[in-house]
Amino acid sequence: MPARGVYERGAIEAILDEALVAHVGLVEDGQPYVIPTLHARVGEVLYFHGSAASRTIRALAGGAPACLTVTLLDGLVLARSAVHHSVNYRSVVVLGVASPVQGQAERAEALRAFTERLVPGRWGEVRAPTDRELKGVSVLAMHLREASAKVRSGPPLDDADDYALPVWAGVVPLRTIAGEPVADPRLAPGVEPSGAVTGWSAQRSEQAPS
Amino acid sequence: MPARGVYERGAIEAILDEALVAHVGLVEDGQPYVIPTLHARVGEVLYFHGSAASRTIRALAGGAPACLTVTLLDGLVLARSAVHHSVNYRSVVVLGVASPVQGQAERAEALRAFTERLVPGRWGEVRAPTDRELKGVSVLAMHLREASAKVRSGPPLDDADDYALPVWAGVVPLRTIAGEPVADPRLAPGVEPSGAVTGWSAQRSEQAPS
Repeated sequence: MPARGVYERGAIEAILDEALVAHVGLVEDGQPYVIPTLHARVGEVLYFHGSAASRTIRALAGGAPACLTVTLLDGLVLARSAVHHSVNYRSVVVLGVASPVQGQAERAEALRAFTERLVPGRWGEVRAPTDRELKGVSVLAMHLREASAKVRSGPPLDDADDYALPVWAGVVPLRTIAGEPVADPRLAPGVEPSGAVTGWSAQRSEQAPS
Repeated sequence: MPARGVYERGAIEAILDEALVAHVGLVEDGQPYVIPTLHARVGEVLYFHGSAASRTIRALAGGAPACLTVTLLDGLVLARSAVHHSVNYRSVVVLGVASPVQGQAERAEALRAFTERLVPGRWGEVRAPTDRELKGVSVLAMHLREASAKVRSGPPLDDADDYALPVWAGVVPLRTIAGEPVADPRLAPGVEPSGAVTGWSAQRSEQAPS
């Protein structure tokens, strides 16, 4: 997936903020594990759910070398020749050490960020965590010091001779959309979803292709 | 992201086949790297683009311990309390050794699978790879021997006391859709996209929530 490197902090943060799921990589006895997790950024710190990393983290009190990657798929890139097929995407790779968040206040902040990340405004609608719940939550933090992005956009790049071929080439844009909210069968009578829920749409950064 | 484990081969293959992007994990000097890549399954073998892994693979002629993970995001799970927010998803983790594909015929097969994976039927529309192109393509293979899936579906799971709260709870379903195909500005005159391109839709397996 060839792409240009992007190093501006704003662009990196926008991609992290738009992605709903991250993949975190950890190593155990030389074997890498890549686990999907929910993440949220607060300033220069990236939080993710520690349960994803429990097997490794439990063995390493001080933190573990980790890699957190997010990828936004923007389109299918259809070239005239098979070898030049690709996808348009934006991805961020964050390298560093994942450390367990110890303080209750920081855990609450991370939980707030996770919740707001899923549905902006949701934190104000739901029951806040108790001290006991916060103690039970496992949150890991990585600093964004070592983060880089890769972006591929635009039409396919074909070999010069192939442009004359009578083969359609271009991009099929992809995006994520939300369907009608499905109420929990055990919903209390008369409770309606808020505008934050019914109006949900994927957060698109300025960098996103239209 | 708590979920139930799924071990039936058919379910695992369906998730791999539906995912458009994979995240592959490799280790170098104890540091994990997680890189997005295109993948395709042919029987019990999973292929992915070797360029994603070039830095590690080049150092290891015989292959490297790897982990290839795909995740399909099916919905936002909105609970009555902050801590029980989650997502519905289907993911597969494949552990094993990633080995470079050496034979030209197998590389061609992998390239065909990559192309067909993006747009079913596309292989028949485009210029086939030359022997020279196939030599330059870097493809890695992993066997599906050690693969497992995790699936979360259905409504949120709240604490018993919280069900009476006047907070809307349920699922916001998510899916990937395609927009109008965008023609390459250098397209030869009079070439129209095929039905395979204009009719593209995300491949939904039977396991996918409706």
